[in-house]
Amino acid sequence: MERTILAIGDIIGKPGMRALFAMLPKMKKTYKADLTIVNGENASDGFGLTPELADTIFQSGADVITSGNHIWQQREIYRYLDEQPMMLRPANYPSGNPGHGSCIFNAGGIRLAVLNLQGRYGMWPIDCPFKKANELLRKVKSEADAVIVDFHAENPQEKEALAYHLDGKITALFGTHTHIQTADQRVLPSGTGFITDIGSTGPDQSIIGFDANIGIQRHLTDLPLRNEVSENSAVVSALVVRFDEQSPLTTTEIFPVREAAGF
Amino acid sequence: MERTILAIGDIIGKPGMRALFAMLPKMKKTYKADLTIVNGENASDGFGLTPELADTIFQSGADVITSGNHIWQQREIYRYLDEQPMMLRPANYPSGNPGHGSCIFNAGGIRLAVLNLQGRYGMWPIDCPFKKANELLRKVKSEADAVIVDFHAENPQEKEALAYHLDGKITALFGTHTHIQTADQRVLPSGTGFITDIGSTGPDQSIIGFDANIGIQRHLTDLPLRNEVSENSAVVSALVVRFDEQSPLTTTEIFPVREAAGF
Amino acid sequence: MERTILAIGDIIGKPGMRALFAMLPKMKKTYKADLTIVNGENASDGFGLTPELADTIFQSGADVITSGNHIWQQREIYRYLDEQPMMLRPANYPSGNPGHGSCIFNAGGIRLAVLNLQGRYGMWPIDCPFKKANELLRKVKSEADAVIVDFHAENPQEKEALAYHLDGKITALFGTHTHIQTADQRVLPSGTGFITDIGSTGPDQSIIGFDANIGIQRHLTDLPLRNEVSENSAVVSALVVRFDEQSPLTTTEIFPVREAAGF
Amino acid sequence: MERTILAIGDIIGKPGMRALFAMLPKMKKTYKADLTIVNGENASDGFGLTPELADTIFQSGADVITSGNHIWQQREIYRYLDEQPMMLRPANYPSGNPGHGSCIFNAGGIRLAVLNLQGRYGMWPIDCPFKKANELLRKVKSEADAVIVDFHAENPQEKEALAYHLDGKITALFGTHTHIQTADQRVLPSGTGFITDIGSTGPDQSIIGFDANIGIQRHLTDLPLRNEVSENSAVVSALVVRFDEQSPLTTTEIFPVREAAGF
Ligand SMILES: [Fe+2]
Ligand SMILES: [Fe+2]
Ligand SMILES: [Fe+2]
Ligand SMILES: [Fe+2]
Ligand SMILES: [Fe+2]
Ligand SMILES: [Fe+2]
Ligand SMILES: [Fe+2]
Ligand SMILES: [Fe+2]
Repeated sequence: MERTILAIGDIIGKPGMRALFAMLPKMKKTYKADLTIVNGENASDGFGLTPELADTIFQSGADVITSGNHIWQQREIYRYLDEQPMMLRPANYPSGNPGHGSCIFNAGGIRLAVLNLQGRYGMWPIDCPFKKANELLRKVKSEADAVIVDFHAENPQEKEALAYHLDGKITALFGTHTHIQTADQRVLPSGTGFITDIGSTGPDQSIIGFDANIGIQRHLTDLPLRNEVSENSAVVSALVVRFDEQSPLTTTEIFPVREAAGF
Repeated sequence: MERTILAIGDIIGKPGMRALFAMLPKMKKTYKADLTIVNGENASDGFGLTPELADTIFQSGADVITSGNHIWQQREIYRYLDEQPMMLRPANYPSGNPGHGSCIFNAGGIRLAVLNLQGRYGMWPIDCPFKKANELLRKVKSEADAVIVDFHAENPQEKEALAYHLDGKITALFGTHTHIQTADQRVLPSGTGFITDIGSTGPDQSIIGFDANIGIQRHLTDLPLRNEVSENSAVVSALVVRFDEQSPLTTTEIFPVREAAGF
Repeated sequence: MERTILAIGDIIGKPGMRALFAMLPKMKKTYKADLTIVNGENASDGFGLTPELADTIFQSGADVITSGNHIWQQREIYRYLDEQPMMLRPANYPSGNPGHGSCIFNAGGIRLAVLNLQGRYGMWPIDCPFKKANELLRKVKSEADAVIVDFHAENPQEKEALAYHLDGKITALFGTHTHIQTADQRVLPSGTGFITDIGSTGPDQSIIGFDANIGIQRHLTDLPLRNEVSENSAVVSALVVRFDEQSPLTTTEIFPVREAAGF
Repeated sequence: MERTILAIGDIIGKPGMRALFAMLPKMKKTYKADLTIVNGENASDGFGLTPELADTIFQSGADVITSGNHIWQQREIYRYLDEQPMMLRPANYPSGNPGHGSCIFNAGGIRLAVLNLQGRYGMWPIDCPFKKANELLRKVKSEADAVIVDFHAENPQEKEALAYHLDGKITALFGTHTHIQTADQRVLPSGTGFITDIGSTGPDQSIIGFDANIGIQRHLTDLPLRNEVSENSAVVSALVVRFDEQSPLTTTEIFPVREAAGF
């Protein structure tokens, strides 16, 4: 029996939240999603996530929320990270930090592990995502059938390196964080599905979701102007991954999706 | 009359050169290219470009060769940069450096300016690409009808910022350098075509064109292992941009292409 | 006749302001300063400078205030940057930005040019400090006798490179920004005095002026904790440069100073 | 009874090796060193270390050789790293790498542990130096009386943060890697001695030990010119740390030294 994972890229502020709410139910139906993952690290006006917004994301249809470097910016989420098992932050932050970076979702008889990891190149140096991935895989091996990884990272080389390192041991690895969808989706030699980045869910005409004029001015003046979420109409960026439940570590189909919300 | 620009992403070593030679003639025909641009900065085993390889790229069908940060690694190309008008290096390197960063190609009555610029975020700090773009546009204004920019840069925000800054003043801006094709091609509000990166022309199963095992080992050991071009079969990554010659600064169609060489 | 320049390193918040106010008058007398330069970029609780604090720094005895990357954080200073000729910001920010990066101070018959430049390695990419230095030197050549440069930069190689580049053309170049005084003061082969960094004027037991416990926690947790100025007792870090007015581009003596405020 | 540790900063190529050989014996006598540590990561023409050069450093009087990021550049040292107990590489490289990052030297009845760690800010991301330090301290606690740390790091904040984190648990922490001696030596509140960087042992008139003209040209052209060790006369940069053997985790005296070799 074919199983489908639907992953939604970083939600950018109010436009991203509106687009998710309006479009996710239909997309889940269209693609017959068994598991829906949403990266929520930019939902709170571009910087972090609050418990209220996380609740709304779950109500919109997410089964699991993943995140990334921005998750620490709204401190009110820290307790939620501890208490909500399906709310993840990158697993390779130091142990002792609030929250956790993996969970297992039961989808009609199949157990799907979701791991959230973060890169270190061009980012803050945290614990090694390669070693943390190995450690988590040992842990979920007996508890899950399929494994999907949200690798929140800046550097394409690091993303491809982790994907090849895990090839054959996980169902699929997708990147988040750059907010730019890539077109390099493929199945790696040992069966793992991969894409460098699934892009963001937010304003289309923008600089990674933020107002283009502010971004231009920042480059022209080198002044520390703060990003503001663009008010242009939004696009949902997503990824569809399919596999057969008889062979849950082999991706049979993987393709990115971009759907305009029209508002 | 519709005009078409075909741009080919960074050629990676021998696999990239072979794929280009085998496939470019057909692709030019398929897409009816009036102008073909090839980024050659990684043709020499992944690091730079030699005069011999540049000649081969022109013989394969390129009208203009662009480049980027790696162009300085093979010193034998320096004189060629000075002497070949259709061979570009990023224009915003310091004046006094070998070579030049813009040219005008005459395609059956239409004059097409090609500008090559380089980003500074996550890269070596050179002169400002925004100011250099303004300066070059003033210069080519009266000499060219259409203008296309190869912006060789790492950071997606910088790429989008320059594209919006030039929106309406150029035909299209495409990114190179990351070696990963993006899926965010679009026409900006004032008519300029844009894509963050057109990807690379080289081994498909690889880490940005290089051997995946070496890359994995480097991440696991943090040793300074040198990249080697992968020997896997190659893909040509490209971009097609179309406009009407009556309105040469308005992109009517823009789409990326990935074609497997099969060897 | 011997002339003396006294330069005071980055003022860190209230402890730095208090130490400056208490100690600068005596230090000016002790070292017989003809010109006193104070870097004020961190005076406003560690982040930027306000007009009121700038006025206080001048009242404490500064002839010229220099700054750096933090100067843009308090927007109320922008107009002051335009209006106060002896208040500098790095000259190699884009033209069009508020303020200016050089001035000439007349000290009893000798004309002393002060230039403020900023580095680009490990920092935000702005205009080239080497080219901007060349340009400013051409400008002040006929207007000044001695020239002193505050090069606000992170990377030691960039600091030494600019110093050697200007050796023989300026009286002295000192670094600021790292907040750590270096012990490498020397006279370069053609007579220019140099030190990599003069250090900061602020709390001694601290992490670059900020609370050590917060800094430790940030490294242990990788959470985005905000720096707060330490409340420990302060040290004034300074540099003394001497030259003979018959040969104003030749440093005869250069030495750093660290004096504890005792509170 | 007073005990003295003498630490010598990064040896830069042949000039550094010559200066070490000529001056170390006398310096050990002058300062009455019980333990002499030499950082050898740049001995091999500026890039790495060979077994032959390591042997010469030990013969010059080093008891322990420490290193840093450059240690991996000469592969012939890898086996030596495994076999020589007093030859260290940063301990927080991944386990499985050649070599080790700590040792214990017995100096006339007192057991002195030397730890070598490496920073991650502005450098390659490796394992966390804070956690690795904690782990090593637990290990050496019962085996050593005094503990000294060579923290090879770029970023001053990271250096100060680790020093304050270990304050009271180690005798002293000194920085290496920047090649610039700092003037901020002090005893931290709980007794640990600290200095941000002890500087390098190599050519004085240079850019961090390398030829100044090449460095200037690299900044003016942005071409990838390779550093070459300067041939100017050398300086030995060192640190002296003293403590009483009754209280081996309390530094009583700490001061940097710079001695010109005169050739
Ligand atoms: Fe994001
Ligand atoms: Fe992110
Ligand atoms: Fe490149
Ligand atoms: Fe490239
Ligand atoms: Fe600064
Ligand atoms: Fe500062
Ligand atoms: Fe070094
Ligand atoms: Fe180093």
